[in-house]
Amino acid sequence: MKYISLFFLCVLFVMPIHAQRPRARTVGIQMGSLPTGTYNAITDVPGVKVGHVTLIKGKGKLVVGKGPIRTGVTAIVPNSDVYENQLFAAAESLNGNGEMTGMAWVNERGLLEVPIVLTNTLSIGEGYSGVVAYMLKQSPNRVPLPVVAECYDGGLNDIAGRHVTPDHVVQAIETASSGPVAEGSVGAGTGMRAYEFKAGIGTASRILPNNHTVGVLVNANCGRRPNLMISGVAVGQALPKETPPPTRDGSIIVVIATDAPILPHQLRRLCKRAAFGITRTGTISRTSSGDFAIAFSTAQVIPRNRATQDSIVALRDNQLNDLFQATIEATEEAILNALFVAKPMTGRDDRTMPALPHDQTIAILRDYGRIK
Amino acid sequence: MKYISLFFLCVLFVMPIHAQRPRARTVGIQMGSLPTGTYNAITDVPGVKVGHVTLIKGKGKLVVGKGPIRTGVTAIVPNSDVYENQLFAAAESLNGNGEMTGMAWVNERGLLEVPIVLTNTLSIGEGYSGVVAYMLKQSPNRVPLPVVAECYDGGLNDIAGRHVTPDHVVQAIETASSGPVAEGSVGAGTGMRAYEFKAGIGTASRILPNNHTVGVLVNANCGRRPNLMISGVAVGQALPKETPPPTRDGSIIVVIATDAPILPHQLRRLCKRAAFGITRTGTISRTSSGDFAIAFSTAQVIPRNRATQDSIVALRDNQLNDLFQATIEATEEAILNALFVAKPMTGRDDRTMPALPHDQTIAILRDYGRIK
Amino acid sequence: MKYISLFFLCVLFVMPIHAQRPRARTVGIQMGSLPTGTYNAITDVPGVKVGHVTLIKGKGKLVVGKGPIRTGVTAIVPNSDVYENQLFAAAESLNGNGEMTGMAWVNERGLLEVPIVLTNTLSIGEGYSGVVAYMLKQSPNRVPLPVVAECYDGGLNDIAGRHVTPDHVVQAIETASSGPVAEGSVGAGTGMRAYEFKAGIGTASRILPNNHTVGVLVNANCGRRPNLMISGVAVGQALPKETPPPTRDGSIIVVIATDAPILPHQLRRLCKRAAFGITRTGTISRTSSGDFAIAFSTAQVIPRNRATQDSIVALRDNQLNDLFQATIEATEEAILNALFVAKPMTGRDDRTMPALPHDQTIAILRDYGRIK
Amino acid sequence: MKYISLFFLCVLFVMPIHAQRPRARTVGIQMGSLPTGTYNAITDVPGVKVGHVTLIKGKGKLVVGKGPIRTGVTAIVPNSDVYENQLFAAAESLNGNGEMTGMAWVNERGLLEVPIVLTNTLSIGEGYSGVVAYMLKQSPNRVPLPVVAECYDGGLNDIAGRHVTPDHVVQAIETASSGPVAEGSVGAGTGMRAYEFKAGIGTASRILPNNHTVGVLVNANCGRRPNLMISGVAVGQALPKETPPPTRDGSIIVVIATDAPILPHQLRRLCKRAAFGITRTGTISRTSSGDFAIAFSTAQVIPRNRATQDSIVALRDNQLNDLFQATIEATEEAILNALFVAKPMTGRDDRTMPALPHDQTIAILRDYGRIK
Repeated sequence: MKYISLFFLCVLFVMPIHAQRPRARTVGIQMGSLPTGTYNAITDVPGVKVGHVTLIKGKGKLVVGKGPIRTGVTAIVPNSDVYENQLFAAAESLNGNGEMTGMAWVNERGLLEVPIVLTNTLSIGEGYSGVVAYMLKQSPNRVPLPVVAECYDGGLNDIAGRHVTPDHVVQAIETASSGPVAEGSVGAGTGMRAYEFKAGIGTASRILPNNHTVGVLVNANCGRRPNLMISGVAVGQALPKETPPPTRDGSIIVVIATDAPILPHQLRRLCKRAAFGITRTGTISRTSSGDFAIAFSTAQVIPRNRATQDSIVALRDNQLNDLFQATIEATEEAILNALFVAKPMTGRDDRTMPALPHDQTIAILRDYGRIK
Repeated sequence: MKYISLFFLCVLFVMPIHAQRPRARTVGIQMGSLPTGTYNAITDVPGVKVGHVTLIKGKGKLVVGKGPIRTGVTAIVPNSDVYENQLFAAAESLNGNGEMTGMAWVNERGLLEVPIVLTNTLSIGEGYSGVVAYMLKQSPNRVPLPVVAECYDGGLNDIAGRHVTPDHVVQAIETASSGPVAEGSVGAGTGMRAYEFKAGIGTASRILPNNHTVGVLVNANCGRRPNLMISGVAVGQALPKETPPPTRDGSIIVVIATDAPILPHQLRRLCKRAAFGITRTGTISRTSSGDFAIAFSTAQVIPRNRATQDSIVALRDNQLNDLFQATIEATEEAILNALFVAKPMTGRDDRTMPALPHDQTIAILRDYGRIK
Repeated sequence: MKYISLFFLCVLFVMPIHAQRPRARTVGIQMGSLPTGTYNAITDVPGVKVGHVTLIKGKGKLVVGKGPIRTGVTAIVPNSDVYENQLFAAAESLNGNGEMTGMAWVNERGLLEVPIVLTNTLSIGEGYSGVVAYMLKQSPNRVPLPVVAECYDGGLNDIAGRHVTPDHVVQAIETASSGPVAEGSVGAGTGMRAYEFKAGIGTASRILPNNHTVGVLVNANCGRRPNLMISGVAVGQALPKETPPPTRDGSIIVVIATDAPILPHQLRRLCKRAAFGITRTGTISRTSSGDFAIAFSTAQVIPRNRATQDSIVALRDNQLNDLFQATIEATEEAILNALFVAKPMTGRDDRTMPALPHDQTIAILRDYGRIK
Repeated sequence: MKYISLFFLCVLFVMPIHAQRPRARTVGIQMGSLPTGTYNAITDVPGVKVGHVTLIKGKGKLVVGKGPIRTGVTAIVPNSDVYENQLFAAAESLNGNGEMTGMAWVNERGLLEVPIVLTNTLSIGEGYSGVVAYMLKQSPNRVPLPVVAECYDGGLNDIAGRHVTPDHVVQAIETASSGPVAEGSVGAGTGMRAYEFKAGIGTASRILPNNHTVGVLVNANCGRRPNLMISGVAVGQALPKETPPPTRDGSIIVVIATDAPILPHQLRRLCKRAAFGITRTGTISRTSSGDFAIAFSTAQVIPRNRATQDSIVALRDNQLNDLFQATIEATEEAILNALFVAKPMTGRDDRTMPALPHDQTIAILRDYGRIK
């Protein structure tokens, strides 16, 4: 009963996400040279779906357990039943001051068997339980090892109140859809900030010359304002100084999907390229940042059956440069999308995390000849 | 209310653990040459405590959510407040088909900031939530990244019923004590089996020539019967064949504590030696096994304050061989203790996991001249 | 001119290797349950060849640059031209106090492009140059990244005299052959010792139930006498105490070949199982030991051409347990073969490294019921 | 005799390095915010020395073994005798399609015991032998495990002729000096190119707020022209298109020195930040690139003696952000210094690798408001 009523409250407070601010590309920023997919989203990789559950409730002074609540869950669903139809995958800790569960399993087997779930730092447990609950709904004999990754949203959110429940996770998985992906303060990105601006979920995609697709989704919660770099311009330093609300150093999670047929050890190399895309937005990956990447390929299904071997197609290493380029470009763009789309948000103790000011940012980029 | 009543039921069903079967050393098995500590337990490392919550309830046919319940939680508490007084640490995936959360953080920072919690595979989420809950009880401003590791007890336990709650975890931490440690079917080891015999928690310790102590605690749930090796004798093959209840390949978690002052990169080397101790009991670390080790040193406290540096004493590499020897010996003995101490247990669907038969095992070891 | 005359001298001093002492299996020791291949050697994997160049010259007091020389080179040649026909591979540092060059390349690409060369610690440079020279002989456009691994033979050999030349390496590669493999004090094993007995090269193989083969070759130079374990019996402690010549802690290199079709991330798991085989002979992998493993699969050739993808067959993880078992058994047996086959050798400063005494060892194993 | 005459020839052909083109900072480019050290070089870290041996000889058509020769050796000498006075260190393969020997040892022990040597891909063997020779000159009892890293200079150099000798390596170590460091086509950088412009050795340094120094030296041989980014501007695309001589994808080696007292696991985190500095110059770290970083701290000497422990000071993680920032800035600047300082070079088959055109580059950066 408690959960049901909470759920209705949540729905009432879900932001009208389609009235979003324009994405980075829309305002004229160029990020790389490869063309984007239809939605410029991770869902451009056929079969990949994204689901958000956004929890926004209450305002004013922080009362642990009461709110204000500014958090949520985002699920990346790789195919219709990844537990039965496993995919090659790899994961990498870029700067491991955070958590992505399931990495040992993914890297030992080279497979992914679960939807990937993003949420806040103190809700990893509920995220984990939620994926288990989802799997047991499919069959009580399943023994999944979930992949749940976190960023810290305690600057705006009553994080110690732990308002994310396993039910929210199930809901995020079950309502995941293809097509356009809501960005900014939505799902796991609800309370996140990057470079001391409101940020959160961002996504982008690239089409390779060989027609394969790379899609990236991030939960962007990293960086300090003086480091913010857009198109190589130190925008964070050029913007007028403000005093943002206090916060801890954050993190970033990068999810990479591709339909290119590559092997686990090659997917791990994609993960490392996520750091390159992150870097292009300026952060030094501060010591307390939890920066993780996970990559999977939808090209080859490894069914959970008693077969003893699989016939596989694997791209040569000489084909990887385009995949690297795509991963870097899409990661950079996904982070900027999070910053451009997210609106200001007021959370705990009436702290307001400002949005990246479009007009001033564009003016700076024009000054530096990066937007015409 | 529900949890409280469940808690009382649990307490009622806790086994009388002190009526345990004799440990491996008691029956005359020799494991290595270094002397043991007072309790031959991880608690011989000063300050280290262990807490178990054992959940045993119901019998008969498996009804998911009802039982039978044969599971639990074990907490290894490194000092009185490890969040404020962090310790050098390292963790290693020996064969990563399982989960130990928190490894990325431990290895990135070289520190441990939480009690280590062991439980069953599908209760990692509750384990995580429980550590968070414990920490928030101390202060709502804490943002811990828990270390929770699992083994699969679904052969006996209604694992899909997920009967471990965060409260059980808090209880295991809060009731942790120094001194003798209950072994076998207790805490996280309640439903575990190794080499197709009932097993679970085991512990052992060694005193080094330099008077430092190494203590090991395992949750032993690995191996197939034909591989079981004791004192180098293939006991698993020499014992009469029986048909044990069906089970999946299991796992093993090894927790290593020492008061020797060593650095994180040296602690990681201890973790790798855990595999040597495991191997000596015969397993090949089967493909589906989730074998993890974590090691910490209590010698040097890194307080959570604003200091900019610490003065540290660090052992030379030339001192490590004794630490390696102690880790290997104590790991081997801890696994054997789990096997020797655990009593037969009947669980779901009236499956009974037999105990290692002491008399026959001793007879075999006598035949091979390993026990006088 | 200098090299040519040296070469003739070397040839004169090559030991009559076929008059070797019996192998471990011949004297009745059982190591595992899987059947061996025809030669019980790494060459049982079709296409794999082994070449040794053995350098034995001089006696008496050490004069650096003069001798006595007790060293050599061993080459493991995976197929007829591995540079053009690359194989899936992986390498792992088990305890990295030594050198195996080429590991970064092997693990980044998941491929092997060179014969694997073993030699002494101070001759890694010449080993590297030798592989480069061999490759440039095939074509001046090749740019190989050699895999050269070392153990320390300075207890018997004038190691600082660096008597291995690149020509010796070319010779070892070019004279590699299939069929039986000389063991003990031959090739890179010439000056090596293990457990304070003369040791060096050893090899063994296993046939899997699915008819695939696993072959292992080691250069065994690790361990202290009190740790020596054979069939689980502490033979090193049971043998009468002697004072062996002074030496430094040594190392072990393990080369694993298979014709089972497995992927790079799976081959890395085989490498980790090498540690299990090593452990079964008793060593704790001492802090100064350089223990490395490399594994390759001959099943799938990746030609060096402009193709963009390959069709591959890959075994499921459920097939790996037999490969693990075979790797562990063959590694253990290869080490014991090195110990059983090697004869006593006198080297620098008239130091004599004794051979493992067969009669006493067999008697001990009989006492413990391990040999009938 | 042969080597002596070659040596004189080499000396004759050494470029007048002090007539170098201006460094990146001199022409007005800003790279980060931290101040540089006295020389803006790795030698700003007290005690660190750099030595180059530059081999330039012959011209015209490639005749393997004759020339043209455009190669060399660079040695980074951490202190006056690092074998006896070891330093904390760590190494990391950023994209391992190349070679840095000694990494396993460095990471297992957390120490550096040798000068770091850079040379060309096919001369790793001679580099290794040279370090061994240097060490044996100090004492015939030394058993070093050299750190030698390579980049491919075969675009200009008769790389298959392997003109680097161990003597050159000894010379580079023995002539290493503090103070200003020659950059560009010098030492191991002689034949290198980056972004399809002549490049090679570059260096830079930063002074931290706590007065510690970070110094970086690179051998820059990576990237394709379209990727070249300076101050965030895609200079490589803005420059007029030319057809550079054919080449293979190259690599980059980054050596990081600091006098800040940090532990091995923290030094490894510095290594990872080298990738951030590299990325800022635009490369995607192409699949065939061999990108390696090694970092050492001069703050704490671990003598090679029989002591059993050391008293150490270690910076807290909260002090690392400045070290990260400094590493990233200095790596970026070192690469740009290599590009700005290197002059055009004509090598094998009369191929000319052009220098980065200063005037056009500055004009582009002015257009984009990055230089005033």
